[in-house]
Amino acid sequence: MTGALFIIGLGPGAPELVTPEVSAALAAVDDVLGYFPYVERVPARPGLTRHGSDNGDELARARQGLALAAAGKRVALVSGGDAGVFGMAAAAFEVVEGEPGFAGLDIRVLPGISAMFAAAARVGAPLGHDFCAISLSDNLKPWDVIAARLAAAAEAGFVVALYNPISRARPWQLDAAFDLLRPLLPGDAPVVFARAVTRPDEAVAVVPLAEARGQMADMRTLVIIGTAETRQVARPAAPPFVYTPRRMA
Amino acid sequence: MTGALFIIGLGPGAPELVTPEVSAALAAVDDVLGYFPYVERVPARPGLTRHGSDNGDELARARQGLALAAAGKRVALVSGGDAGVFGMAAAAFEVVEGEPGFAGLDIRVLPGISAMFAAAARVGAPLGHDFCAISLSDNLKPWDVIAARLAAAAEAGFVVALYNPISRARPWQLDAAFDLLRPLLPGDAPVVFARAVTRPDEAVAVVPLAEARGQMADMRTLVIIGTAETRQVARPAAPPFVYTPRRMA
Repeated sequence: MTGALFIIGLGPGAPELVTPEVSAALAAVDDVLGYFPYVERVPARPGLTRHGSDNGDELARARQGLALAAAGKRVALVSGGDAGVFGMAAAAFEVVEGEPGFAGLDIRVLPGISAMFAAAARVGAPLGHDFCAISLSDNLKPWDVIAARLAAAAEAGFVVALYNPISRARPWQLDAAFDLLRPLLPGDAPVVFARAVTRPDEAVAVVPLAEARGQMADMRTLVIIGTAETRQVARPAAPPFVYTPRRMA
Repeated sequence: MTGALFIIGLGPGAPELVTPEVSAALAAVDDVLGYFPYVERVPARPGLTRHGSDNGDELARARQGLALAAAGKRVALVSGGDAGVFGMAAAAFEVVEGEPGFAGLDIRVLPGISAMFAAAARVGAPLGHDFCAISLSDNLKPWDVIAARLAAAAEAGFVVALYNPISRARPWQLDAAFDLLRPLLPGDAPVVFARAVTRPDEAVAVVPLAEARGQMADMRTLVIIGTAETRQVARPAAPPFVYTPRRMA
């Protein structure tokens, strides 16, 4: 019996956005571990043990998955979106680095449709030109680093996708980010608030940066901030398309 | 008969990475348009007209797709990876903006697994912390903008994913990018050259920035450049894992 660890991105939510590669792996594993709303996306079946856990302590969760794989189990460690983007993949390799006995295991990362690409697709192509992704959580890095990255991105002309924009424990960072960006970008630069894209409670809004407020987001929102180049295209009886041209004006 | 335009990301190449949403759309369309190697990924079948075209003139291709949709056809406009990332989606909305008659059409973007996430998954989690994507093509923007973005990204601590790193017509830009980054990053920062990931001729290499050379890439290579924080984890009888920790040291 040879164990294996599959580090899996479940995509934004809809089953139609789970890759066949991921579906095949999930059908073959003995154990699935992850933050409980993600684990619940994997249907119960005989032979599958589901280990849902609370948010936080990703390292302990990764270590548990690696230990199960080392004991011969086939294990899925799941994240929403793509596990390599502010998900469980980096946590798992951090554990492997600290406990080299795990390095000989069969460990595979299976990519997923990220929240940023699902959100972008919903409104058009806001990430059509150079862009960056920043986690707004200051649990793992200082706020001054986040602020410097936001400013650098805006000044250099990157569209910005914000992960982890807000939470009960971090209520002020998103407004601080908008305040920091307002002097650097036009007031009409579009800000996309894409909540729970592809889920039944999906809600998408586009507002100008001048009117963007932290309270427009929650923990399940992906925020995309356009540049001076980002365009809006009106359409009948529907919100505008938002896209960033490939060619600089 | 009501037409529709689906702007589709086919993923990096392997059928296992095509989402069920995309497969369903491709099974239902009348016409598929795109750069010919992508169109060839969509199997011929009765009722499907395949319009492969050479690279370049994405706007003409997008206009043709929109015109077919306006004439009542169900049309797929395909890109590799995710169509919203240096793909056909931005081109299509650029045409719609210029020809507002198209704005009332049923236009949907279906996300795909991007080359950068497939490449990252292959080596570990190099994009596990803040990152950016830059097209190195200076066909659509001036080189000094590209150079400024590379420097801003490195100085601010973003991992950089480089699209369109090199081509016969643009042979010097990738070496220029490495030369620009070398004074800003440690010489041992890992550079991932991920060619044709998930295709039969896949080839992945990891070299330190000090040794990275433009000739290590071709048109089908996605290049990821780590930061001072990016780590390598040795493993037996295999290339090292590469990951960027979530927590700043």
